[in-house]
Amino acid sequence: MNKNNFSIGIIGGTGIMGKFFESVFLRYGIKTFVWSRKSEESLESFCTTKNIDIIIVSVSIDVTEKIIAEIGTYISDNQCICDVTSVKIGPMNAMQKIGKPYFGMHPMFAPPLSGKMDGQNVIFCSGKNSQKQEAFIKNIFEKDNSHILESTAQEHDEIMSIVQGLSHFFDITFVQTLRARGLNLEKIFASRSPAYALKLMLSGRTLYQDSELYGNIQIQNSQNIKTLETFFTEAQKLFTTIKNKDLNSFNQIFNAQTKFLGKYAKRSQDESDIIIDYLANRILSKKGVENNNYKFDARDMLLKVS
Amino acid sequence: MNKNNFSIGIIGGTGIMGKFFESVFLRYGIKTFVWSRKSEESLESFCTTKNIDIIIVSVSIDVTEKIIAEIGTYISDNQCICDVTSVKIGPMNAMQKIGKPYFGMHPMFAPPLSGKMDGQNVIFCSGKNSQKQEAFIKNIFEKDNSHILESTAQEHDEIMSIVQGLSHFFDITFVQTLRARGLNLEKIFASRSPAYALKLMLSGRTLYQDSELYGNIQIQNSQNIKTLETFFTEAQKLFTTIKNKDLNSFNQIFNAQTKFLGKYAKRSQDESDIIIDYLANRILSKKGVENNNYKFDARDMLLKVS
Repeated sequence: MNKNNFSIGIIGGTGIMGKFFESVFLRYGIKTFVWSRKSEESLESFCTTKNIDIIIVSVSIDVTEKIIAEIGTYISDNQCICDVTSVKIGPMNAMQKIGKPYFGMHPMFAPPLSGKMDGQNVIFCSGKNSQKQEAFIKNIFEKDNSHILESTAQEHDEIMSIVQGLSHFFDITFVQTLRARGLNLEKIFASRSPAYALKLMLSGRTLYQDSELYGNIQIQNSQNIKTLETFFTEAQKLFTTIKNKDLNSFNQIFNAQTKFLGKYAKRSQDESDIIIDYLANRILSKKGVENNNYKFDARDMLLKVS
Repeated sequence: MNKNNFSIGIIGGTGIMGKFFESVFLRYGIKTFVWSRKSEESLESFCTTKNIDIIIVSVSIDVTEKIIAEIGTYISDNQCICDVTSVKIGPMNAMQKIGKPYFGMHPMFAPPLSGKMDGQNVIFCSGKNSQKQEAFIKNIFEKDNSHILESTAQEHDEIMSIVQGLSHFFDITFVQTLRARGLNLEKIFASRSPAYALKLMLSGRTLYQDSELYGNIQIQNSQNIKTLETFFTEAQKLFTTIKNKDLNSFNQIFNAQTKFLGKYAKRSQDESDIIIDYLANRILSKKGVENNNYKFDARDMLLKVS
């Protein structure tokens, strides 16, 4: 293999991530083909008749392994497969089984409005016999100002079981609890300080997403069960100190985590101060505008009381 | 009582909230006295010899009721007590027992750097025979551009068991889980998308606070146990759908919460988009500065990869 330019095929290319990647590749003048379930052409014909070098699988997490296995029966030894799902152990194993060149990616973002990858993270998991194809894709992403991170599939899924799994789990159960307690939503939103406003906002944001995608992110990451079991164990420890009104033990647990966070505790304070200041300044600037008979809507109102 | 101006005494006036309120009252030319454990004067003498009209109790949550009971043995029928703690049922009951004028407040903020209350929330709980004193304090706070909310003690504590109790509980147990899982903190922070960056930031922020204060916020709010028990029940329901790989039941739970949030789901998305854009723009503007040999520190680096 001695090519400077690889042609790319996107399976699931009419989904929102597939479309986004197509637009990025086209912007860099790369020959790009797209296939979806609605295509008249068969998947076999798509994979075998177009001289596609890199086949990107951009389908729903729960059918990724099935599609990889199917593609594997068609492709030649020179064709490279990669996937873009939010889990890596399953798809990487499925690609490895095929015995052709492969690697994995996880773009840590929804398609940005700008259409560019500016400042966004993409995690790469190295596969086999795919150094050149991987380097080719990374080079495009870096030209588009994205930030490349490397990980093993195991480590990726463990980390995602925290930053996606546990974090979405909290967002959903936060609102479940609020609802089961029968509390007044309007009053809760009105009682927000800027820090709580941010938390409520992030829970609401999660619940505005696609439940199928978020369900699959929970169900398909094999590391989530262990993380959630660990969470329940740790949560019970903290809950016991609260139930027993045991301030000393509470302090011990709390301070052990602060120590564990180390420099990140102060950094978090500094960074969130900037965001909270920004929220507060938005409130003040709105006030300035109101003085000139600005008719603020419910959303401004919400920010005003936050 | 026919006064336009009341004199104010702050018990715990050398603590950070006590000092802040003193500075606000002094800015409006109000006669203000301060007492703390370090004062040479006795608490009895402080309460009885200065013609103080409103005594504000601004001490640690766990000693608030004790101090209220003590003050109650000294004060006259015209003197009004109020507290500024993060819980309301206990202190309101304690003040009611005394039989003198009283009301409750909860400032929903740490002292702002500006020294002004601009845009911050204060919750008031009406007490007894204290309409004029309450109106006097509210008037000062509103002049300082704070936002006044009214609540009963019961409703206040229920709502705070969510926006403080449950929300701090998540922040702490999030880091407990991360630590117990033995995952690499550096990698977790590096793998952040802007939305996860915000979540990690808020957890880190909570753990940078005073563990005694946060422990008392958990332990002293009688509504926290019920809220946390409700949370464990709801969390187990969601966990079961994940363990059973039951996407349908997951979708049902998820979508029921989205429906419950109603307009707040889209609002949360819109509001957090603004914040995330701001984070992203900060990243881009830093990049611009770097081109002129700007030497960015670890903190900028952290924002860059977020």
